[in-house]
Amino acid sequence: MKFQEKLDKIVRKNNSLLCVGLDSDLDKLPEKFKSKKNPQFEFNKFIIDTTHNLVCAYKPNSAFYEAEGADGIRELKLTCDHLKKNYPEIPIILDAKRGDIGSSNQGYIKYAFEYLKVDAITLHPYLGKESLEPFLDLKEKGFFILCKTSNPGAGEFQDLSVILNEVKDPVPTKSGRKNASLDSSASPQNDIKLYQYIAIQVATKWNKNNNCMLVVGATYPKELVEIRKIVGDMTILVPGVGIQGGDIEKTIKAGLNSKKAGMIINSSRGIIFAKDPRSEAKKLWDKINFYRI
Amino acid sequence: MKFQEKLDKIVRKNNSLLCVGLDSDLDKLPEKFKSKKNPQFEFNKFIIDTTHNLVCAYKPNSAFYEAEGADGIRELKLTCDHLKKNYPEIPIILDAKRGDIGSSNQGYIKYAFEYLKVDAITLHPYLGKESLEPFLDLKEKGFFILCKTSNPGAGEFQDLSVILNEVKDPVPTKSGRKNASLDSSASPQNDIKLYQYIAIQVATKWNKNNNCMLVVGATYPKELVEIRKIVGDMTILVPGVGIQGGDIEKTIKAGLNSKKAGMIINSSRGIIFAKDPRSEAKKLWDKINFYRI
Repeated sequence: MKFQEKLDKIVRKNNSLLCVGLDSDLDKLPEKFKSKKNPQFEFNKFIIDTTHNLVCAYKPNSAFYEAEGADGIRELKLTCDHLKKNYPEIPIILDAKRGDIGSSNQGYIKYAFEYLKVDAITLHPYLGKESLEPFLDLKEKGFFILCKTSNPGAGEFQDLSVILNEVKDPVPTKSGRKNASLDSSASPQNDIKLYQYIAIQVATKWNKNNNCMLVVGATYPKELVEIRKIVGDMTILVPGVGIQGGDIEKTIKAGLNSKKAGMIINSSRGIIFAKDPRSEAKKLWDKINFYRI
Repeated sequence: MKFQEKLDKIVRKNNSLLCVGLDSDLDKLPEKFKSKKNPQFEFNKFIIDTTHNLVCAYKPNSAFYEAEGADGIRELKLTCDHLKKNYPEIPIILDAKRGDIGSSNQGYIKYAFEYLKVDAITLHPYLGKESLEPFLDLKEKGFFILCKTSNPGAGEFQDLSVILNEVKDPVPTKSGRKNASLDSSASPQNDIKLYQYIAIQVATKWNKNNNCMLVVGATYPKELVEIRKIVGDMTILVPGVGIQGGDIEKTIKAGLNSKKAGMIINSSRGIIFAKDPRSEAKKLWDKINFYRI
């Protein structure tokens, strides 16, 4: 099954656009887990077992497992195995933000899709489509390309205006029409930002297998509106609600596609390190659905 | 000791700008290593023990170890431990191309500098300086920021012309003078490419602790010349010679700094999978020094 189909199914089943980020930093785990044999895995199992019917995806961030070396990677693997065995209908998005030249990307592919057996991965766009083709050729998997990230300093390069000498393929809009403002007349006056150009390239050139998606931070709702116009109904992963400060109402209104879906709204620390993670997840699930309808 | 001092010492001791890339893909190892208990480590140990007096650094690419999951990470750790114990004077550059928001970067920092105990890491610039500050604050470590990568499709975003409304800090050139062409008069006419702007930002804003360096592919000698003008004597990691097609003579002439150094020239597959890795490393060492002087 293709990633998007799997996602659509669980979105319907759990009536959810909520993704729980498994940023299970060992140092921040509750004491009762720290003393267990596989603390990160046992903590994740608890989080998963208590929130599985509220989510459309889980997103473990590889950084927090790599931090513990081989042991952490093993616990991440146990976490993915637990998900695959008990909740095979829930997609796993590995937040790894990888991006290397083609031959090295094969290593990351083996890590994500053969070893961990996740359904999707986040990727850096900087090396271009050609470098990421080993990923994009995998038709069944999902690829979330960083577009406008949630951090305060994201604009340093992402907001630079770029000069397009020629844009051969005008961009289809949500309604299927061509978008004149991104047509071959594109010039500095069009003021296209780098993050917009990445959205254009991903939507028009990278997505032959319909397996590309974008990452856009909830902390930038204005930019989310613009990106939604560029990419039509494409799924957008939206981190940055909760502790990072993104506003749910603004985010939902900015990002929904024509089917009142097309977003995966991620909260990590705000849920998993809450006193009652299920209750915190349920609150966010409620909020998302309140503004979604 | 700061990364740059450590590098300068070994460059002098081994009279070398050569870095051997430990891209030790398990599937590509010679048969005699595949049957060993720790095949990637045993292979790396063989490569290191036979080339250590020819190199200025080793650069393991994390992708090829992650590909084997927890076992691979353990073998990467064994490799780093072997280097630290037997050749502590040789810097280890972890080629991991990481780049996340600040709190997640802490996980990668723990992986690289506490678990593996490497000396430097490669980083993606896309999220901006603010996101990478947890790295850049580590004064003793080295940070190689991707600037112009070696892959054929690198230009998709890296070569975009960007519009700078204001460049407050003119860029110091090799000779210490200010570079007028990047002055506050910067405009579309100056035709500054994204990769050049990244070099400018890293050289003028990111490098307060003198621990920033760049990655520029040997496949782009013209761009290497331009980047050298922007960053003065800053060290540049240059992958892409050998199998990727970069020309040694052009690369050396394009990239040397005012001290006839400032480059780390990496070859991975061309050396480690050669019939006689030491002889192949020695050939490249000879060539580099032939054109260097």
